[in-house]
Amino acid sequence: MPFTEVSVDIIGRFEAIVGKENVITDKEKRLDYGHDETEDYSFLPEIVLKPGSTEEVSQIMKICNELVIPVTPRGGGTGLSGGALPIHQGVVLSMERFNRILHIDELNLQATVEPGVITEVFQKAVRERGLFYPPDPASRGSCFIGGNVSENSGGPKAVKYGVTRDYVLNLEVVLPTGDVIWTGANVLKNSTGYNLTQLMCGSEGTLGIITKIVFKLRGIPQKSVLLLMPFITNEEACKAIAEIFRAGVSPSGLEFFEREAAMKTIDYCEKIYAAKVTTPFPENMDAYLLCELDGNDDEILMRDAERVMNVVEKFQVGEILFADSDAQKEELWKIRKNISPAVNAYSLTKAEDVVVPRANLPQLIVGIKEIGKRYGFNSVCYGHIGDGNLHVNVMKEQISDEDWNTKINEGIGEIFKLTVSLGGTLSGEHGVGIAKKPYMHIAMREANLNVMRGIKKAFDPHGILNPGKIF
Amino acid sequence: MPFTEVSVDIIGRFEAIVGKENVITDKEKRLDYGHDETEDYSFLPEIVLKPGSTEEVSQIMKICNELVIPVTPRGGGTGLSGGALPIHQGVVLSMERFNRILHIDELNLQATVEPGVITEVFQKAVRERGLFYPPDPASRGSCFIGGNVSENSGGPKAVKYGVTRDYVLNLEVVLPTGDVIWTGANVLKNSTGYNLTQLMCGSEGTLGIITKIVFKLRGIPQKSVLLLMPFITNEEACKAIAEIFRAGVSPSGLEFFEREAAMKTIDYCEKIYAAKVTTPFPENMDAYLLCELDGNDDEILMRDAERVMNVVEKFQVGEILFADSDAQKEELWKIRKNISPAVNAYSLTKAEDVVVPRANLPQLIVGIKEIGKRYGFNSVCYGHIGDGNLHVNVMKEQISDEDWNTKINEGIGEIFKLTVSLGGTLSGEHGVGIAKKPYMHIAMREANLNVMRGIKKAFDPHGILNPGKIF
Repeated sequence: MPFTEVSVDIIGRFEAIVGKENVITDKEKRLDYGHDETEDYSFLPEIVLKPGSTEEVSQIMKICNELVIPVTPRGGGTGLSGGALPIHQGVVLSMERFNRILHIDELNLQATVEPGVITEVFQKAVRERGLFYPPDPASRGSCFIGGNVSENSGGPKAVKYGVTRDYVLNLEVVLPTGDVIWTGANVLKNSTGYNLTQLMCGSEGTLGIITKIVFKLRGIPQKSVLLLMPFITNEEACKAIAEIFRAGVSPSGLEFFEREAAMKTIDYCEKIYAAKVTTPFPENMDAYLLCELDGNDDEILMRDAERVMNVVEKFQVGEILFADSDAQKEELWKIRKNISPAVNAYSLTKAEDVVVPRANLPQLIVGIKEIGKRYGFNSVCYGHIGDGNLHVNVMKEQISDEDWNTKINEGIGEIFKLTVSLGGTLSGEHGVGIAKKPYMHIAMREANLNVMRGIKKAFDPHGILNPGKIF
Repeated sequence: MPFTEVSVDIIGRFEAIVGKENVITDKEKRLDYGHDETEDYSFLPEIVLKPGSTEEVSQIMKICNELVIPVTPRGGGTGLSGGALPIHQGVVLSMERFNRILHIDELNLQATVEPGVITEVFQKAVRERGLFYPPDPASRGSCFIGGNVSENSGGPKAVKYGVTRDYVLNLEVVLPTGDVIWTGANVLKNSTGYNLTQLMCGSEGTLGIITKIVFKLRGIPQKSVLLLMPFITNEEACKAIAEIFRAGVSPSGLEFFEREAAMKTIDYCEKIYAAKVTTPFPENMDAYLLCELDGNDDEILMRDAERVMNVVEKFQVGEILFADSDAQKEELWKIRKNISPAVNAYSLTKAEDVVVPRANLPQLIVGIKEIGKRYGFNSVCYGHIGDGNLHVNVMKEQISDEDWNTKINEGIGEIFKLTVSLGGTLSGEHGVGIAKKPYMHIAMREANLNVMRGIKKAFDPHGILNPGKIF
């Protein structure tokens, strides 16, 4: 079905719903809503609406459903797969006014929030009540928590505490038809019909518009230790990972980065924060593991840290740094969290986000480098490797535009084929969006994609909500 | 669309697929496949098939999809909501020959199993390798693990370790059309398209037939302590629950039962096991909490046990029993796990499975008893109350058949309305099946049910798979 253009008459109807001040038609301002953190994509929406209530979203959807106008919901604009980009123009629905934490229920360890709350703001608000919301994407200072739900974001704590979806109990959702539902109930277990809550998580804004989220929360672990472990090769570092878990330790973070990532990020951080990095990164070491352990008991933390060191010492490891001061821990996490911006500041990149069973990581990392050689690209690898999730930033550097859009994409296809052959899949936490859509057939059969298309149709008969994404 | 009857010709086609020895047409034997543990329901299937491979299931489904024959997949027959009953006759697909544990991957802490493996057999097999599969339904000795996935079973460990769905990484599924898919990948995090894995979990055999399951596993906690805490009223016991969690303790089991449940079960156990129960259950105490703590460190366990006791002593509690011997722990768990059979041996029951945010449990339990008085029924309440999940067994006793099928159902409707008004829902772990289907409108809007029907249609265009369940 062809989409309807947003006419002056339709703009008037939108203005009547959200108020003139919450409608953007100015071209330059609209451009701000046409890109995110994915490569250099940019798409101009016809109009940007900033609704302020569920009822307003519902009214907008009723009009767009009736007239068949594409609607792209948008959070903080920090996505890494282009999931919130208006590739068919139409309406961008910015959720920026849905920015209230509605209720923190200390008795039931739950919180109800609107999707436009910035993740870090929510983390801090619950922490002030002695509670803990573990998902922690690197973009936490600017991403919206609704976007985290839509892309099923992870972050370093996921290895122990799970990803965003593991904290979502219930969602208020405006369906593409304008109907409003709650997907479940505010309970810890639920076997009452299909799990619409989990279906919404990670559906990248294609099934409905999230207008309220009920999260479960945890108690805060009071203490942590952090180890920086340098390895002679990235393969050797990857080999150590499965063994750490086999030793019965459950780290609250187990991050990997190649030396090149560290070096680029140290330069970047020293510029950005105007402060010298003091942590030593020994030379002749190609890769690092950053291992955090948390809990409430010093003795157990030290015992677990010893276990980790005993495991790691069987591999070709350099001197292990035990970060005991808060300042040093902070510096190490700052380096880790700035890898992505640092690499992007150095070169345009294609940021991949593959995930495999963790014992297969050594084969993955060796294979990726071999593919890079064959296809002529350099990559910086890092990520939440404790759960098998590796970020692969392929750098454009001196590669021609033509090769970048053809040959390099073929090479990335090879990386995905390798990943799938190792029991893994395309995305651990960034989503498919438009960036990984061309590769979906590598991970899935046509029957899978057909089922997904059928689900999409059940929610969105006219295909107006975030069209052109995932499949 | 009207369903096709299973003719002699069709039987011949089935025999050619699974072999004559795996086709049951004898009426008496078919009757065995027409009931489960839900009330006294019984439905006679036209034929029972016992396929032995994914390919055989696929061939059967292709025939049934083409001819529009209803197919009801069946596990161990221990369901408590009638989910596996062939209410439209047709084919019962018994998964009893899918009974192999295919692979236990000690390096990745994963296992791949067929759905007809008995849950306890699987638990023991992984335990022998030093691994832990926490979901532990009371029927573990006879239920199939595929049924656990389909109903999203829980059990006492769920309060700390989560329910069945939390351990499912990937599923091989035969769709109603006969197409075979894997729903995801064998990875710990996945943001690659819609989460078909979680959609299948708890879908009660209405979307596809599970033929392989990939579970994640954990390390085994080495130690545990168990406390039996008697309270003067059931309301008082329920009040203590939220406070235990607020004190920062995370029990590995927090079970509740009323005195009447304990008394009936002690009698039942003494008969069944021909052994005297030695644990004292103090008189004048209306309710009990059974609190298990697990871990690897004696000191921490004792500290947490003290915290629990300190919390509980602020309520009207009797003398707390600290079960330190394995024999006493075993006896207490045996009593807990036999409540349901004991109550069922005493009277026909309707077994409800409501769940609320745990701080709302006191209002729930008081309300249930008040509804019982108004509608003239007695109930025995017990359950996994740490996660807000309360089992309510309404007993027929001397109630007339007519009242049982009308007035008592109205009373149960009142319990569900109360539950929903407290932020809860109809089922925490037993599913909807046919038993709770008439009450679904209490928990959900028509828009929710329509979305679920749309999803069903996307998977099963002819509506042949387990028809008449859930909605």
